[in-house]
Amino acid sequence: MSYQLHQQLKKDTFKLGEFELCDVLLMNDARYPWVILVPKRDAISEIFQLSQTEQRQLQSESSFVAKAMKDLFSADKMNIAALGNMVEQLHLHHVARFRSDAAWPKPIWGQGQAENYSEVAVKAISSQLRRVLKQNLISDENLTF
Amino acid sequence: MSYQLHQQLKKDTFKLGEFELCDVLLMNDARYPWVILVPKRDAISEIFQLSQTEQRQLQSESSFVAKAMKDLFSADKMNIAALGNMVEQLHLHHVARFRSDAAWPKPIWGQGQAENYSEVAVKAISSQLRRVLKQNLISDENLTF
Repeated sequence: MSYQLHQQLKKDTFKLGEFELCDVLLMNDARYPWVILVPKRDAISEIFQLSQTEQRQLQSESSFVAKAMKDLFSADKMNIAALGNMVEQLHLHHVARFRSDAAWPKPIWGQGQAENYSEVAVKAISSQLRRVLKQNLISDENLTF
Repeated sequence: MSYQLHQQLKKDTFKLGEFELCDVLLMNDARYPWVILVPKRDAISEIFQLSQTEQRQLQSESSFVAKAMKDLFSADKMNIAALGNMVEQLHLHHVARFRSDAAWPKPIWGQGQAENYSEVAVKAISSQLRRVLKQNLISDENLTF
């Protein structure tokens, strides 16, 4: 297995840690709380290419993240999506949405420009997220923040 | 259990049939092959609100649809998403994407206007889809086309 996180995802995110199956990444866009799960498997671009066991694990990790984010941010709705038209490596978006946010009720992709976090803000949200995700985080190595 | 398909989804789609957990719907938009799965459960808006067994079943039905659509249409990529900002009832989009399609590489939501199928075209695609989904379809009742 020679999994490596895609360069574009590496560039656009901060690593929060790792679950059993997935790298857990925070998108560097202060407009929306936005966590990306990337299965640590090589050459996979569609969910159905994972084994059945891995698909169940992805589902479980995804629901864990979605519920934790909805509770933490008191979101009105979670948006979950596997798109991958630009970055082929399978990655699953989890975006906390609010009736008051810039793109509501549209999806966020392709709407406006990403706004990078300040150093203070990324520290704050990373620490909040790590706290609520802690029970399933298995690694704190190589963290980008 | 008093599940009823949301009026907006009913209006925008043709029913292809039912799986064990989900209604299987074809979106009435000829621009993209687009299938929507709706878990036949009442008052659910987030995947994590389903039981663990139901979440696994949804994952399994979703991967079955995604693989069947990718093969049938020789799609370049499947886009799978649970959004629900406008229609709260949990529904999972499966869209076959092509490098040549109108919105590529952007997601399709919020791009342009839906183009309704002609009667001939919806019969053709419904029949193609039912053929590849047949092994998991448990009902042919109340079909809208």
